[in-house]
Amino acid sequence: MSEINAPYASCIPEIDTVVQKLCQTESLSKVWREASSGSSMPSLHVLKEIMERLRAIIFPGYFGSSVSSRSVRYHLAANLDSVYHLLREQIARGLAFADAFPADLAKQKREADAASLALLDRLPEIRDLLAEDAQAGYEGDPAATSPGETIFCYPSMYAMFHHRIAHELYELKIPLIPRIISEMSHSRTGIDIHPGATIGKNFFIDHGTGVVIGETTIVGDSCRLYQGVTLGAVSFPKNPDGTLTKGNPRHPVLGNHVTVYAGATILGRIFIGDNAVIGGNVWVIHDIPAGAHIVQGRSDA
Amino acid sequence: MSEINAPYASCIPEIDTVVQKLCQTESLSKVWREASSGSSMPSLHVLKEIMERLRAIIFPGYFGSSVSSRSVRYHLAANLDSVYHLLREQIARGLAFADAFPADLAKQKREADAASLALLDRLPEIRDLLAEDAQAGYEGDPAATSPGETIFCYPSMYAMFHHRIAHELYELKIPLIPRIISEMSHSRTGIDIHPGATIGKNFFIDHGTGVVIGETTIVGDSCRLYQGVTLGAVSFPKNPDGTLTKGNPRHPVLGNHVTVYAGATILGRIFIGDNAVIGGNVWVIHDIPAGAHIVQGRSDA
Amino acid sequence: MSEINAPYASCIPEIDTVVQKLCQTESLSKVWREASSGSSMPSLHVLKEIMERLRAIIFPGYFGSSVSSRSVRYHLAANLDSVYHLLREQIARGLAFADAFPADLAKQKREADAASLALLDRLPEIRDLLAEDAQAGYEGDPAATSPGETIFCYPSMYAMFHHRIAHELYELKIPLIPRIISEMSHSRTGIDIHPGATIGKNFFIDHGTGVVIGETTIVGDSCRLYQGVTLGAVSFPKNPDGTLTKGNPRHPVLGNHVTVYAGATILGRIFIGDNAVIGGNVWVIHDIPAGAHIVQGRSDA
Amino acid sequence: MSEINAPYASCIPEIDTVVQKLCQTESLSKVWREASSGSSMPSLHVLKEIMERLRAIIFPGYFGSSVSSRSVRYHLAANLDSVYHLLREQIARGLAFADAFPADLAKQKREADAASLALLDRLPEIRDLLAEDAQAGYEGDPAATSPGETIFCYPSMYAMFHHRIAHELYELKIPLIPRIISEMSHSRTGIDIHPGATIGKNFFIDHGTGVVIGETTIVGDSCRLYQGVTLGAVSFPKNPDGTLTKGNPRHPVLGNHVTVYAGATILGRIFIGDNAVIGGNVWVIHDIPAGAHIVQGRSDA
Amino acid sequence: MSEINAPYASCIPEIDTVVQKLCQTESLSKVWREASSGSSMPSLHVLKEIMERLRAIIFPGYFGSSVSSRSVRYHLAANLDSVYHLLREQIARGLAFADAFPADLAKQKREADAASLALLDRLPEIRDLLAEDAQAGYEGDPAATSPGETIFCYPSMYAMFHHRIAHELYELKIPLIPRIISEMSHSRTGIDIHPGATIGKNFFIDHGTGVVIGETTIVGDSCRLYQGVTLGAVSFPKNPDGTLTKGNPRHPVLGNHVTVYAGATILGRIFIGDNAVIGGNVWVIHDIPAGAHIVQGRSDA
Amino acid sequence: MSEINAPYASCIPEIDTVVQKLCQTESLSKVWREASSGSSMPSLHVLKEIMERLRAIIFPGYFGSSVSSRSVRYHLAANLDSVYHLLREQIARGLAFADAFPADLAKQKREADAASLALLDRLPEIRDLLAEDAQAGYEGDPAATSPGETIFCYPSMYAMFHHRIAHELYELKIPLIPRIISEMSHSRTGIDIHPGATIGKNFFIDHGTGVVIGETTIVGDSCRLYQGVTLGAVSFPKNPDGTLTKGNPRHPVLGNHVTVYAGATILGRIFIGDNAVIGGNVWVIHDIPAGAHIVQGRSDA
Repeated sequence: MSEINAPYASCIPEIDTVVQKLCQTESLSKVWREASSGSSMPSLHVLKEIMERLRAIIFPGYFGSSVSSRSVRYHLAANLDSVYHLLREQIARGLAFADAFPADLAKQKREADAASLALLDRLPEIRDLLAEDAQAGYEGDPAATSPGETIFCYPSMYAMFHHRIAHELYELKIPLIPRIISEMSHSRTGIDIHPGATIGKNFFIDHGTGVVIGETTIVGDSCRLYQGVTLGAVSFPKNPDGTLTKGNPRHPVLGNHVTVYAGATILGRIFIGDNAVIGGNVWVIHDIPAGAHIVQGRSDA
Repeated sequence: MSEINAPYASCIPEIDTVVQKLCQTESLSKVWREASSGSSMPSLHVLKEIMERLRAIIFPGYFGSSVSSRSVRYHLAANLDSVYHLLREQIARGLAFADAFPADLAKQKREADAASLALLDRLPEIRDLLAEDAQAGYEGDPAATSPGETIFCYPSMYAMFHHRIAHELYELKIPLIPRIISEMSHSRTGIDIHPGATIGKNFFIDHGTGVVIGETTIVGDSCRLYQGVTLGAVSFPKNPDGTLTKGNPRHPVLGNHVTVYAGATILGRIFIGDNAVIGGNVWVIHDIPAGAHIVQGRSDA
Repeated sequence: MSEINAPYASCIPEIDTVVQKLCQTESLSKVWREASSGSSMPSLHVLKEIMERLRAIIFPGYFGSSVSSRSVRYHLAANLDSVYHLLREQIARGLAFADAFPADLAKQKREADAASLALLDRLPEIRDLLAEDAQAGYEGDPAATSPGETIFCYPSMYAMFHHRIAHELYELKIPLIPRIISEMSHSRTGIDIHPGATIGKNFFIDHGTGVVIGETTIVGDSCRLYQGVTLGAVSFPKNPDGTLTKGNPRHPVLGNHVTVYAGATILGRIFIGDNAVIGGNVWVIHDIPAGAHIVQGRSDA
Repeated sequence: MSEINAPYASCIPEIDTVVQKLCQTESLSKVWREASSGSSMPSLHVLKEIMERLRAIIFPGYFGSSVSSRSVRYHLAANLDSVYHLLREQIARGLAFADAFPADLAKQKREADAASLALLDRLPEIRDLLAEDAQAGYEGDPAATSPGETIFCYPSMYAMFHHRIAHELYELKIPLIPRIISEMSHSRTGIDIHPGATIGKNFFIDHGTGVVIGETTIVGDSCRLYQGVTLGAVSFPKNPDGTLTKGNPRHPVLGNHVTVYAGATILGRIFIGDNAVIGGNVWVIHDIPAGAHIVQGRSDA
Repeated sequence: MSEINAPYASCIPEIDTVVQKLCQTESLSKVWREASSGSSMPSLHVLKEIMERLRAIIFPGYFGSSVSSRSVRYHLAANLDSVYHLLREQIARGLAFADAFPADLAKQKREADAASLALLDRLPEIRDLLAEDAQAGYEGDPAATSPGETIFCYPSMYAMFHHRIAHELYELKIPLIPRIISEMSHSRTGIDIHPGATIGKNFFIDHGTGVVIGETTIVGDSCRLYQGVTLGAVSFPKNPDGTLTKGNPRHPVLGNHVTVYAGATILGRIFIGDNAVIGGNVWVIHDIPAGAHIVQGRSDA
Repeated sequence: MSEINAPYASCIPEIDTVVQKLCQTESLSKVWREASSGSSMPSLHVLKEIMERLRAIIFPGYFGSSVSSRSVRYHLAANLDSVYHLLREQIARGLAFADAFPADLAKQKREADAASLALLDRLPEIRDLLAEDAQAGYEGDPAATSPGETIFCYPSMYAMFHHRIAHELYELKIPLIPRIISEMSHSRTGIDIHPGATIGKNFFIDHGTGVVIGETTIVGDSCRLYQGVTLGAVSFPKNPDGTLTKGNPRHPVLGNHVTVYAGATILGRIFIGDNAVIGGNVWVIHDIPAGAHIVQGRSDA
């Protein structure tokens, strides 16, 4: 082409300066990931696909391809196989992420394979639990018109579907992946259940925004929570070196048939007895006996 | 191709076992949807498109195709026709979902058609209400710089846009669809307004996360709520057979110009008089007279 | 083709009626945007791309293309240049949106260009701050297993990444765009930080849903908040003409090492001294001295 | 908002004029589709999905999800069921499109269902034929390195995959859909095979662009064509009313092991004997005996 | 994070070397676009959307949203307005691309606006022509079952739809855009019609792959071509400076009712009389009288 | 949920039958890919991304992100690094596909890495060649208005861009990938150039549909072809075992400044001298001396 005077391929000094600063060791080392041998981060995109396939496995007809009772078997099998393969890879990435030292890749692969199969094996039981949760939602909310409605559009069911999957992976000691799965649900529902929490049958959370359930919480059967409830820790013991002690039991234990109304806060490794009712906005840091009704004392003009 | 020894098309026994379990009647029947004659579930994807087209109809220029005052008419008409057709189909699916008995499909279609047209007919009034809500947001938030800013990016406007549409469909006695529409907004804003709630003019919710407004709530004109406010029910009467009584008035009635500050909880079919102010974190279960200021008594070291 | 009797291209009278109503001046003028000379609204789609590129710039390896220490420089430079160009255009749209009068387009372009470069210039410092926030999250949460995990999936990091970008644009007096960026984060995390808030180093919010931090809030270094905390205003002074006074200091000032537990509400231009601890659900409207521990008095059966 | 003088919602006269013209009966009736009772056009998008699923059924491992010999069965079943359902609907649309009179919808549904199942039933045989075609491609092209390479990226295989499916639907007397399927292949490969053509085993087309094979063509086993070959009709008999006679045999019949080189044109219901070789650019309108070699006479300076 | 020895943000020398070479003026200047003042290239993506909207305008019911005779008017108007705006911008980019000197941007905008409106104005006539082309396709192909089938899936209709639009823009002297539109069709159908070609009514191309119709070709009414036909130039006169003379009439003129069979080549500014028939593979470089039948002499063993 | 009589999770016998047949060894083994150790097929999606990034590298400003002379360097570097990584993976898959025996994976990775770098190293030269091709297109086509127009929308440039990349990979002895790249171009342009062909400078193909250039073809500088030209092989020698001899020189050699008009066929390892002109539709199977003009003898009525 024709003659040009403009100097080609110069640069933008302001951008060069920023690149230079962002590439200096003192800047980059603060955020540099020291994972084992170049493995990739888990893919949020693939984990989303996995959860969608699992939802179609647990609740065929509600989610995933349209199926009839005569064809559900085919799609179950294909989805299970896809979940098996996709999850295996994501678990392996989670293991690599958490591994401080040069990883034994073959061992990671074996672990990831076993964990992926182990999750599949638990799915029938998870479906049973979720079906009971849906029934609990229907029975516990006067505005609900059928268990199917809770399956299809209640945030409680969305949160418990994620939690019951994430909890299995937590029990299998898989790092990172359970947390990502629970954050998917937290960001959508405002319900933050740590994958470590143990939750019994017939569980229902109404509305749900702002609920927090901590890592070592244990919830019995047929409990019900409302929006803004915290089942949290009261203090964090420290190790001799000043760092936090991780993993010790520090969240509440709820018995069966416990109801906790909106905004209540229950903190520490305390025990809430069967059939107890904790009123809205109440603050609880001591054990509560079975059958007790705790209410806030004041609310006057 | 060449000779192969590997047995083709065997299977993965672990997956076969899980398929088998998930296909047994005792497992599958727990989650099987008993809808009428094979109709599909409502499509979240299409409902999202419907809401986007409705937003472009209500707030042309802010959302949807770029339009001028000379071309807005063309896009309004096309969007209205598309909403009419798409919504009709989704409403019919909602009716089929809720129908316990073999459905009268022709009747469902007629109902869906009528409801879709009835919603369109209400849109001019809905626009008026939302324009006033935007003005209320601008006037009520010192950080707001124009009503247009509230239309374009305030969660309160997002929630009220969904609510005012969902409420119309609720009034038309359409099942499921209004609930899905309100959950779209709940998951995005953290504001959970039941489609049944009746909300007056000039309504504004600041911040909004954690707000819950129940099915039979009535809110007058020019009210304002802050984050974490609950307008809820205090107890659920049961029918003689032990199931919950559904649909009875059980949520508060707010007069005009009522302000409810962050975290306040107002429960039961009680009446909050005009111009009342309910302070933050306050717990209210009795009527409040007009003009009263309710505050929490304590906050000391 | 063959003879047809049906009249072509008639219309649907119900739709025509609604179009007519929605096009009347009294309806349309309520929602009509009076921006300068036909400029487009900011694009949420492009702003999302900008934030994704910025995340890949700040945390290479965690987000964006897979990079090694040898290739990170290339992708940093390309992402910076793309952000520069894309953001410049969005800022110009924001300026046009806010401009009541016929705009000086050339001046808007110059301002947008300068602001876009100014943001880039601040990125190294923003990365330092966010790396410290990640460390604070790891140290403050017993459930966290590494700073990398907080970078990759903690809502606090998501919120602070958006806030530290939005705050820079707020300081540059860019309208609308900072607010859109903070709403992106609010809708995903339930954490609502106004772009105007000034937040120190080592900041961490645990769980986060329902947190509100107002426009003129100042937070010192090494503070920690839990879910549902409000740092808000207590009342809004009005101008002589009855409109709200905008921009005056009306939110709290927190010193260093302040901890605020779940559901606490701190309102007004008050001062919370260094090392203070505000207990859960506490309501604070007066200054708190350094080192004080404020707790809620009651929580009994 | 504020006072505005500009008349809202006027119009663009030039556009109104064009709308008016395009809506007049004399314009619209020229292109108006007179299908039965409002049924939709076949969806190119869905037909593309069907063809992709069929490709994964026929050539697992090459196309579709990654499968092993242990999991291929699962994905085959799910893909078959999806093809069955999706194709049934598209066939019904094709039948509705072709139906001049008010359609018997139930009868169309039954026909579509039967045809969809009938196609599935033919898939094992179609796979055999295509596997032989792949072998023929490998053996016939010195540049091919394996039959797998021809399966994965040769236009001949793409064209024959589409043709062997389209031909089955043609044999089942399904309107429109076979033609759409063959055009998908025509537009991608430049090979235009009418769905009606009958093509034997071991068929290969090298390069392929410009090949045309007419509706009533019959090709024996082990034939090979090169680019630009036409197997066409020489003239079209007309009916007494002047319209073309449709469906009569008017294209060539090729025996077994016939080779036709680039650009050759073979026209009319003529017979090309076994093992004949038709040279490049040759023009053939009479029968050719078995074993003959036809070449172009001239090619001189 | 922890101590790291690896040098951060080094580089990949091989890539640096290639970047260096590709940025040198002698390399970059060979491909550098010298358009006026930083305007963008036309967007293939937007042009594709424009063509899809135009197809829905011309053939409502076949393409675009599902419409009835009662709603077609709404979608026509919205599509016309969108085409008007989108095309205006693309035409302006085409003008900027072609403009060697610093452009008069305001003048370009005015021209683009006028051209976009002028195209809309021609659409009713273009629809008439295309409807006649569809009828010609139906009447000319024994395999066609209805004019609607040709509209929906015949390559000839796809090509003529693009050509009749592109030709209008060519007549309006718009650079680049018509060529892009014709290449869209060329790459899909294998039919290469230069936007400059003038083509009469009732035109049909059967199969079509390989057809080439040059810039100054004139085709009368009711002509029909088959695959591989070239209507080309025989030689290109040069200017005194050795460059090609551009724009002079150099392609054939066909009368009415001319048929050209597959592979025929007609070259130069020659005249083919009414009702002439040019046989397959024939080579024509002289005028042909009306009614003549030209055939290839040889086709023997 | 309630009692159900319908047997769950039965099956569709017709589908079961087809699955059974398609899973039998005799069916499946015909199409089963015997690649080494479970590696994936090359991804057409990723290869498309690679080609798009390469196009932005070669022709910045025409394709890819909008760049200025000051920012082109940044995007070049990022695109080169991405191509390097993405292509390396695809080449490794190609090697695995072609490897009959259990592969040495580490060796494959090293080879793939080296080949990917080697391609990058050749890009400056490839850009020079393509810039000259663009100039040749402009000079050779009276309808072209600038070299930029040929870069942006001429099929010849699209084909040569793909070819010059594919040829480098062919020279590096990479299996499968070059062929996939050339088929991308073949399916879009109708121009089928085997990656093995050696093509000199200043090459231009006008219109292009139907052009075939064989594996061992050699084309000198400044040649020009028209649509439908074949540079092919005349016969394929066989090995003693009856299979085709692969790789021997069997296609024509063209000197410099050779022009071949539309539809001409040149077959076999013959030599076409410098400046020769081969007329349209001519059939050439012997050497042609330099400067000769070969034309077809007949074209009469």
